[in-house]
Amino acid sequence: MKLRPTTTDAAAANRLTEEITLEGHIIDSWILPKVFDAVMDLGGSFELLEIRVGRRKDETSFARLNVSAESESQLGRILTTLQDHGAVMASQNDVRTEPAPANGVLPDDFYSTTHMPTQVRLGGKWVEVQNTEMDLIITVDREQSLARMVPMADVHQGDAVVVGYNGIRVIPPQRSRHHEVFSFMASEVSSERPKRRVIEELAREMSQTRARGGKILVVAGPAIVHSGAGPYLARMIRAGFVQVLFGGNAIAAHDVESVLLGTSLGVTLRSGQQVEGGHRHHMFAINAVRKAGSLRQAVESGLLREGIMFECIKNNVELVLTGSVRDDGPIPDVILDMAEAQRRMREAVKGVDIALMIATMLHSIATGNMLPASVKVAAVDINPAVVTKLADRGTFQALGLVTDAELFVRELASALGV
Amino acid sequence: MKLRPTTTDAAAANRLTEEITLEGHIIDSWILPKVFDAVMDLGGSFELLEIRVGRRKDETSFARLNVSAESESQLGRILTTLQDHGAVMASQNDVRTEPAPANGVLPDDFYSTTHMPTQVRLGGKWVEVQNTEMDLIITVDREQSLARMVPMADVHQGDAVVVGYNGIRVIPPQRSRHHEVFSFMASEVSSERPKRRVIEELAREMSQTRARGGKILVVAGPAIVHSGAGPYLARMIRAGFVQVLFGGNAIAAHDVESVLLGTSLGVTLRSGQQVEGGHRHHMFAINAVRKAGSLRQAVESGLLREGIMFECIKNNVELVLTGSVRDDGPIPDVILDMAEAQRRMREAVKGVDIALMIATMLHSIATGNMLPASVKVAAVDINPAVVTKLADRGTFQALGLVTDAELFVRELASALGV
Amino acid sequence: MKLRPTTTDAAAANRLTEEITLEGHIIDSWILPKVFDAVMDLGGSFELLEIRVGRRKDETSFARLNVSAESESQLGRILTTLQDHGAVMASQNDVRTEPAPANGVLPDDFYSTTHMPTQVRLGGKWVEVQNTEMDLIITVDREQSLARMVPMADVHQGDAVVVGYNGIRVIPPQRSRHHEVFSFMASEVSSERPKRRVIEELAREMSQTRARGGKILVVAGPAIVHSGAGPYLARMIRAGFVQVLFGGNAIAAHDVESVLLGTSLGVTLRSGQQVEGGHRHHMFAINAVRKAGSLRQAVESGLLREGIMFECIKNNVELVLTGSVRDDGPIPDVILDMAEAQRRMREAVKGVDIALMIATMLHSIATGNMLPASVKVAAVDINPAVVTKLADRGTFQALGLVTDAELFVRELASALGV
Amino acid sequence: MKLRPTTTDAAAANRLTEEITLEGHIIDSWILPKVFDAVMDLGGSFELLEIRVGRRKDETSFARLNVSAESESQLGRILTTLQDHGAVMASQNDVRTEPAPANGVLPDDFYSTTHMPTQVRLGGKWVEVQNTEMDLIITVDREQSLARMVPMADVHQGDAVVVGYNGIRVIPPQRSRHHEVFSFMASEVSSERPKRRVIEELAREMSQTRARGGKILVVAGPAIVHSGAGPYLARMIRAGFVQVLFGGNAIAAHDVESVLLGTSLGVTLRSGQQVEGGHRHHMFAINAVRKAGSLRQAVESGLLREGIMFECIKNNVELVLTGSVRDDGPIPDVILDMAEAQRRMREAVKGVDIALMIATMLHSIATGNMLPASVKVAAVDINPAVVTKLADRGTFQALGLVTDAELFVRELASALGV
Repeated sequence: MKLRPTTTDAAAANRLTEEITLEGHIIDSWILPKVFDAVMDLGGSFELLEIRVGRRKDETSFARLNVSAESESQLGRILTTLQDHGAVMASQNDVRTEPAPANGVLPDDFYSTTHMPTQVRLGGKWVEVQNTEMDLIITVDREQSLARMVPMADVHQGDAVVVGYNGIRVIPPQRSRHHEVFSFMASEVSSERPKRRVIEELAREMSQTRARGGKILVVAGPAIVHSGAGPYLARMIRAGFVQVLFGGNAIAAHDVESVLLGTSLGVTLRSGQQVEGGHRHHMFAINAVRKAGSLRQAVESGLLREGIMFECIKNNVELVLTGSVRDDGPIPDVILDMAEAQRRMREAVKGVDIALMIATMLHSIATGNMLPASVKVAAVDINPAVVTKLADRGTFQALGLVTDAELFVRELASALGV
Repeated sequence: MKLRPTTTDAAAANRLTEEITLEGHIIDSWILPKVFDAVMDLGGSFELLEIRVGRRKDETSFARLNVSAESESQLGRILTTLQDHGAVMASQNDVRTEPAPANGVLPDDFYSTTHMPTQVRLGGKWVEVQNTEMDLIITVDREQSLARMVPMADVHQGDAVVVGYNGIRVIPPQRSRHHEVFSFMASEVSSERPKRRVIEELAREMSQTRARGGKILVVAGPAIVHSGAGPYLARMIRAGFVQVLFGGNAIAAHDVESVLLGTSLGVTLRSGQQVEGGHRHHMFAINAVRKAGSLRQAVESGLLREGIMFECIKNNVELVLTGSVRDDGPIPDVILDMAEAQRRMREAVKGVDIALMIATMLHSIATGNMLPASVKVAAVDINPAVVTKLADRGTFQALGLVTDAELFVRELASALGV
Repeated sequence: MKLRPTTTDAAAANRLTEEITLEGHIIDSWILPKVFDAVMDLGGSFELLEIRVGRRKDETSFARLNVSAESESQLGRILTTLQDHGAVMASQNDVRTEPAPANGVLPDDFYSTTHMPTQVRLGGKWVEVQNTEMDLIITVDREQSLARMVPMADVHQGDAVVVGYNGIRVIPPQRSRHHEVFSFMASEVSSERPKRRVIEELAREMSQTRARGGKILVVAGPAIVHSGAGPYLARMIRAGFVQVLFGGNAIAAHDVESVLLGTSLGVTLRSGQQVEGGHRHHMFAINAVRKAGSLRQAVESGLLREGIMFECIKNNVELVLTGSVRDDGPIPDVILDMAEAQRRMREAVKGVDIALMIATMLHSIATGNMLPASVKVAAVDINPAVVTKLADRGTFQALGLVTDAELFVRELASALGV
Repeated sequence: MKLRPTTTDAAAANRLTEEITLEGHIIDSWILPKVFDAVMDLGGSFELLEIRVGRRKDETSFARLNVSAESESQLGRILTTLQDHGAVMASQNDVRTEPAPANGVLPDDFYSTTHMPTQVRLGGKWVEVQNTEMDLIITVDREQSLARMVPMADVHQGDAVVVGYNGIRVIPPQRSRHHEVFSFMASEVSSERPKRRVIEELAREMSQTRARGGKILVVAGPAIVHSGAGPYLARMIRAGFVQVLFGGNAIAAHDVESVLLGTSLGVTLRSGQQVEGGHRHHMFAINAVRKAGSLRQAVESGLLREGIMFECIKNNVELVLTGSVRDDGPIPDVILDMAEAQRRMREAVKGVDIALMIATMLHSIATGNMLPASVKVAAVDINPAVVTKLADRGTFQALGLVTDAELFVRELASALGV
């Protein structure tokens, strides 16, 4: 069906207008109402030129709109926002770039990326942008017809940085019609809902990923060790369910403390009793590793014979320990330079299929920012506010679980058969 | 050793003074410093007349003090407070009483009880007060030499109500020197601490209690059913680990919903998926029981063939379902009159050894208020503020666990071998 | 534009089919995608017969669908669910009823209400259903052409109870295009977002409501008194910003305690210091009111000269205090019978324009269940889980604020100029 | 009074024994019972040789004990623990040291510090240890008779590191008898308690500190800006109530975003409305500062004309912005090397009188670890678990407030008269 073009506004004559198209499950995935909202919220107006509604669950829909605004900058804001929902300019212009004015400094009108697959139009052709990460910028090599996302700090003076909204196409994930463990629509599973089946499905996804040689990332907080669930995570690593592990100084120090002294934060893991004076134990553990030289040397020298760190090293898990300003010691393997830490994490997340974030807000948010929307993310924390923050990624691939990390890790290990 | 009496205050001559004694693990159990604090906080002064400090862990200590205040009412406030810590008046007077001025109304100076064992002095003899519950009052039958704690509302005009502080002896629990699961000093086990051993010890205590024919009370919130842990609680009941069950309309309605329709709050327990329109399911469940007449009739007619309610009825568990203003329906067995509900609960808690409170603040606080300090209480909730409230009973018999009720019930059932 | 009817399923011939229509801001308010979802989630299929999409923000849209299912009961489930989104059967049949089989018992196929305005078709005419409340049922008086929502427990044997889905029309609230304080789309304002402007807008709404003689309901938890914010709520009552007040025994007892003794829960409100032995203060306060006879008599006798209760009585605020199983005393005005308590609350919420729920989960949920969707609801609690529960009413009229009740009440009082 | 020495254990002959003394408010401050606990928890035994109990609130007490254990290492653990409570060895030996085996590596038996004032015995004299911070080690310069606390990482090979427990004296803070805002005994003020008076007293303490030229540190989380409370903190800085400010990249970036674009996290601070596409705003803000060169240059160039960062720079506040692995950008002033960041923070906390930690766990814990016990610490967060962590410093100088940061900052500013 075709719609007769009708202007939405009498004064539209002297307005700036751009035609856009939307295609896919745009009603089902609530894209069309979001686009209407966005235009109006930003003070623009739209004219629906054409709409075709898919009539069956496997049929896609299509819409063509004129979007108008009163100024170039307003139109730019609207179009940039609509692009996040998959809108494509009908005017098939090439992407625009401007040179970076200095190292680590961007031209004013720079385009800031989403975590969704993105294409730019170079020489009339759509080119896939390499790497996918939120809040980066895109630099272009026109000669090689290459585009990639880079962090602001890594831009060099003169780099061709994408600006404006022309020639950019974002491909938002579309809503799956069949239920999956990771398709809870970016909302969380409250502690009052059944989590057992979710844990079993997560275990199934992890098993399938392991079976096909995929990559599973675990971002692990120290509460896993404090609560006595460390040995279960260690078993998961030994059984091949973890390819990359992110953490901080605390999980490494307390894992070593638990192996060498049987305590974590000075609490005996066997009995749950606080050891008088035990708050010093982590200092002894850290000193022991410093004396050995590194975690790897502590393993090789026989000092470390079990635990999460031991299993990572023995099983060639990519271990990235990043520091923070609250660290004691630290363990020598901990990266103290945050720019370097981010580079190492960015490198390590490449190719990750599933990311499990357990009881650590800082490292989880850092990781979440680096993950493309296509990665399945499960965020586990006992604090609902933390889970909401982590699971709220504007995607259908995030699963938030408000639950106890200790019991979760044990149930997951059991569901994985380790 | 004897101390030379020294006045703490030059103006003590015209002060009101009372001699008290303290005996037991008064240093170990931090009773002596608390008594010093209380006197000073309330504006009084004290004179330490005698102190004997136990020199080994099994030796008790003893202290004798003069407590002074500037007015009779101030002295009364101080002595009443010290009594809660076990202070006994050296002046061995009988307890004083006054007649209640009207039904449900108390004389002004009434003594309000603690949840600790209490004695009153009648005709020169210390008499055990029957029933032990906080915030009740004591009525005395001098002829029969009887005293018992009763709720304010159950006092009749003319009843002899204990007033003042004379002739009252409270026996505070003393701190055990060996570690027990219920001796975490009224503080809670945070979600970051190991809870597994605690759950195992709790299971051991419950097994011992079952073995010697003791009485275990479970106060159960509906989240147990919503989260899919209902079948595990049902198994615990069937295996004889529950003698009394307290709950509200919600746990009964959703348990029946889960049995008849496979959902709770409209969420399929098998898959965790929300059923469209399923929020009406509990109405159908409630109506089904109302049609049967009662939960017992629903069991006998074969409508209910499993679940928490079914097991309670089949295994003669004392089931007290108390209503609240938010109830739908309700299920016919739910007691709608709150005075009657409290009477039924009071009756049912008699003789309880262990009370397990899981994911319900309202019913847990109601129950906690009724329990003597000697009952071992485990309070489980994912919200630390709720656990703090429930575990903070001024006793060494309360254990608070900040954790996920679903996973807790499953782990406990597994530790109990059911 | 007209669509050529296309069957979504080859086997549709032997399926049961019903034609429905949807009208209004069905794209904007995300009604159409929700309807598509619901049909597919419940295993049905649909055929889009006609769609007209509003092209400007003030234009409504229209859709006509055939919905098919494989059984009568499946179709019933689907249609009942679609009705909640405003779907109307194209077949204009009268509503069906069946007699209640016994007092308080419903026919099996009873229709359970939403909190949205509802009409039933009687003798070919759409009749407004009186009272609007969720989870009730509809009884019909065909002779008088009357229909009203009643609680299950109030149904009498033989009453004509609405069953099935024919002849029922639900009018869902539609999303307002301009931003309002109560249009945060049923989601909450986290503690990290600016709440000041929200409080100011709430104050403006309350002032307008007072100015036009509207009705404001406050559901108040005892933490208002414990935290020292009681005098600010009292001022709001005195200034005419509260017409109805719901609470429990605790807020009444602690308000009286604060007036008579200067403490709440035994904590001095002036200094925040715990008074030793002060946990008994509320018992003295309760006894004082019991002695006076009632709160009104306590005011009239001069015992109570200020506070929340005092202001309610002096300013003819409709005060409904409902009991719970955890109550001490109670204060004589507290309703102990939950059926009676619900009746009194139901009566009192009639005509309420704004409901403010502050720091009380039990009474707030009870109240929320009774409120039509058209009432503007603000729910305030420091626990995000509570706010989510209260604000999640499937409507655009609920505003959840995760914040501190004490500071909220003070800021609101200041914004109201009291 | 003198006690006749009595052995607590028949087998004491072949035990290792050490005599210790305790002096001060050791009953009042609960030090004596804690010492008894610690000895027994660690498997030792004690013999009370002498006790003198202060009889008035201003009289100190004294105790002399023999502490015994079965091995040297057990005795060492016990004595080290008792030292934290102020125990002093009767055997007046000098402190022992061993040379550090390598840079950043400690001898095995190193002494790990508390955050309390500490002395070491050098050449028969007690020498004050410079700097006071928890979990550091002590190095000694015998020639100069100097001792200071240093972080593990800053130890050089050959440094004389204190080991064992001889010749070490810790001076624990003693409990003040009069109530102060910072003497809530390391427990927190729950959201249900009155916080207004606490805020007023905090304001008074801050005013006195400013008046006498003292030093106030604010550790500030980005929620202060997100919630719209930034201008109030800015006013406090301008009025001289902040001498040191710690934060991360987020508070700087969002403060600049709020000044340049009127939003924080893309939410308009004036209306609380989310701006479509506004999540990119912080990237523009960061780029603007990078372009200017630094925050100072942004102020000097006139780009920044108000806000928290502006006021810090204009008023010569010591501003330490420390990075984390989750940072975007970052703002050029943010320190990316965590070792350097800690050094800068350590330098800046010297001489701080009051530390206010508002809505930031990471930076607050980092700061808390660096503060001597004598610094008054107020920790404010809406999450009770965070407040418990921050306020639990084993001291009487910490005050935890569970409340809303936005409303807290506004009330504090108002109480400060700014």
